[in-house]
Amino acid sequence: MTTFDFCERILDLLRGKQYSALQRYLDTLNPTDIAECMLDLQDEGDLEDKELLRLFRLMPKELASDTFAEMEPELQEKLIGGFSDKELGEVLEDMFLDDAVDVIEEMPASVVKRILKAVDAETRQAINQLLNYPEDSAGSLMTIEYVDLRPAMTVEEAFAHIREHGVDKETIYTCYIIGPTRKLLGAVSVRELLLAKPGTVLRDMMETNIISVSTMDDREEVANLFSHYGLTALPVVDKEKRLVGIVTVDDAIDVLQEEATEDMELMAAMLPSERPYLRSSTWELWKQRIPWLLILMVSATFTGMIITGFEQGLAANAALIAFIPMLMSTGGNCGSQSSVMVIRGLSLGEIEMADALRVLWKEFRVSVFCGLALAAAGFVKVLLIDGWLFRNPDITVGVAATVGLTLAFIAVVAKLVGGLLPMGAKKLGFDPAVMASPFITTIVDALSLLLYFTIASLLLGL
Amino acid sequence: MTTFDFCERILDLLRGKQYSALQRYLDTLNPTDIAECMLDLQDEGDLEDKELLRLFRLMPKELASDTFAEMEPELQEKLIGGFSDKELGEVLEDMFLDDAVDVIEEMPASVVKRILKAVDAETRQAINQLLNYPEDSAGSLMTIEYVDLRPAMTVEEAFAHIREHGVDKETIYTCYIIGPTRKLLGAVSVRELLLAKPGTVLRDMMETNIISVSTMDDREEVANLFSHYGLTALPVVDKEKRLVGIVTVDDAIDVLQEEATEDMELMAAMLPSERPYLRSSTWELWKQRIPWLLILMVSATFTGMIITGFEQGLAANAALIAFIPMLMSTGGNCGSQSSVMVIRGLSLGEIEMADALRVLWKEFRVSVFCGLALAAAGFVKVLLIDGWLFRNPDITVGVAATVGLTLAFIAVVAKLVGGLLPMGAKKLGFDPAVMASPFITTIVDALSLLLYFTIASLLLGL
Repeated sequence: MTTFDFCERILDLLRGKQYSALQRYLDTLNPTDIAECMLDLQDEGDLEDKELLRLFRLMPKELASDTFAEMEPELQEKLIGGFSDKELGEVLEDMFLDDAVDVIEEMPASVVKRILKAVDAETRQAINQLLNYPEDSAGSLMTIEYVDLRPAMTVEEAFAHIREHGVDKETIYTCYIIGPTRKLLGAVSVRELLLAKPGTVLRDMMETNIISVSTMDDREEVANLFSHYGLTALPVVDKEKRLVGIVTVDDAIDVLQEEATEDMELMAAMLPSERPYLRSSTWELWKQRIPWLLILMVSATFTGMIITGFEQGLAANAALIAFIPMLMSTGGNCGSQSSVMVIRGLSLGEIEMADALRVLWKEFRVSVFCGLALAAAGFVKVLLIDGWLFRNPDITVGVAATVGLTLAFIAVVAKLVGGLLPMGAKKLGFDPAVMASPFITTIVDALSLLLYFTIASLLLGL
Repeated sequence: MTTFDFCERILDLLRGKQYSALQRYLDTLNPTDIAECMLDLQDEGDLEDKELLRLFRLMPKELASDTFAEMEPELQEKLIGGFSDKELGEVLEDMFLDDAVDVIEEMPASVVKRILKAVDAETRQAINQLLNYPEDSAGSLMTIEYVDLRPAMTVEEAFAHIREHGVDKETIYTCYIIGPTRKLLGAVSVRELLLAKPGTVLRDMMETNIISVSTMDDREEVANLFSHYGLTALPVVDKEKRLVGIVTVDDAIDVLQEEATEDMELMAAMLPSERPYLRSSTWELWKQRIPWLLILMVSATFTGMIITGFEQGLAANAALIAFIPMLMSTGGNCGSQSSVMVIRGLSLGEIEMADALRVLWKEFRVSVFCGLALAAAGFVKVLLIDGWLFRNPDITVGVAATVGLTLAFIAVVAKLVGGLLPMGAKKLGFDPAVMASPFITTIVDALSLLLYFTIASLLLGL
């Protein structure tokens, strides 16, 4: 909402060529807001590429780099196209290294080449190192800009070191203490340093029992550690326990949000996407949605086959047809309730693979009680609403009993399938969320129909 | 995993009455881990209530309070039952106020009374103030333990203030600068203070354009600000813009995680729960799941009625029955794809109410292309697989065309319903996620069947 107000002001000042007023105004704004405003103005055609570049160049260096880091890749690419090589190098070098790597990962090869040529040798080497880590690893998430101290330093020396080297570190509030081979020995917070006597030696005050992760750890697990322990930074070490980088809490939050979105998309039978909904084109949304729609349509051939197999019996007991959708959707709901809880539990680390039997047993008990309640309610509902209220003479006690009994069995089967399949997927190395709606629905649908027709055969002689 | 190792060690030392060794060992551990270990040991019956209390009392005061804050409410209540009033007061006063309030909110009235009597007058007043804010507000999320500075202070004086008062503030890294009536004037980070000259006056260096929230703001929106702007703390002000508290990033992460879980549960037709899956009893899980199962079972009466209405026509064209499940589940999938994206977008603040028309138009375009693809694939699939491969003579080109055409219309209708209903819910003040699966499924199911039978009547004379 407020984005609009200051966005209009920016445009007014730019159009009125009041550059020095605009410069002062930009300096009071937040980089995230400026980046959003630039994108909005471009989207609405209010800001030409030339004007975008002018606006960007009006910002003080640090603000410009921070704003650049917050932009959507399209806008970054546009700006890079307008930058001189010198300008490009400066912007990238002013950014935190992990942000610079995030930019590079989204650019086409030709732009990457230009960027790597434009930055200085040291930055280039660091970028290349970070680019080498797999996309979902702690290594790709970390930054190498942190404060490292030595165990023999005093608090006073530590502060001198922070004052000298802290300017372009991503966080200075947790400092890491390393040995001669860069082995991680401990950590000390600026808070502890501030409250300690200036002469205290770090070795005597540092926390040695610190949580660290390895460069190859999965980034979702790393982000979960932040949430679990309430951390603001986490050191990343290599195989020899040498400190190579840190992950900061802002990046961890982004991972947690992205992973939750991804899980939701997978559960709703979509391929995950990284772009916000309103910024995705029709074509991108279509590509994200159509594969599972087609797969699930074709896999429903099974349910069709089962119905075709019982076609004659159904024609003779036409009243049974009307309950097929209700039974299948109840099965689907039961299954997705269980699968969603298990998938979320696995994501949050609340459920581990070793808990498979506990999950099975819990789902069995819950499903029996759900089944009993559904059976009783279903039996009464079929007799009262479908039979008596709508005066349908085909609804006999036998039909009601068939529907009720089927509901009980469906609840149990659907919940067991829904609870176990995600764990099975994880065991096999797949993302548990992929198993959620799509596969479970297909399996539960087929099983629900088979249960229905089998019970109908036994009770009604279908 | 490692929880087990150190948990066993704790139990060994406790059983062996090696209390001083245990005390030293506990001091190397993390409060979150100790709290988890205590819960595990109690769950497995390895730790009696008396031993739990002894273990707790062995910890140094600060660690004990931190561990207490991390515990599940059951365990906290058990410990409180064993505490003397003096002990209770000390533990609560050592905790951060927002954590203490979190504890109190979970306790039965009698325990709350005892707690409020046990703490000192100042803490009692502060707790009562925080307890007054609505559960989902920024006020209930904030802590009142922050560092406040005055604009006339120098950097040197600021450090002196932090050293004196910072010990029991939840964060010292962002300090807030307030005027004579506590009006929020600006903020300064410890990083900036460290890098500034000792004589600099805060007025001249403070950031005045700061993001703040109001006590009554929704906690999900507050948490989203952390993620959007990459914050680590956020000031909370009252109606007169006076500073009353701060929200810290660890609490914001918890909110984001809880809200994502809640959305997933609602989307999967469950009532939200706050307890982790494995800690929920069968009865709790049942209560969470059965309401929607029953409601949706009964609401499926509509689909049953529609089928019953076309019963005679279906008996004459039995081949059409086999496609009912596939058509309904395709409708459900199309609808939930759209609704999940819109709900998540609303949660993350990426979609606002003003975007309703853009969403409608986007969903329309995507749904047309999805519909066309489904129609074409469905037509071919019915003819080839159901007709030719399974040699079913009832599958005519007319049947295939009916199914294909229905798929196209279902995709459009389902995606429009799925995209708009969550926004309608938000407009009416409901949680958009409640609209997701349950309502949308019922509406889309009924519409899908009506479309199918209407198209069949037109093409096949059903």
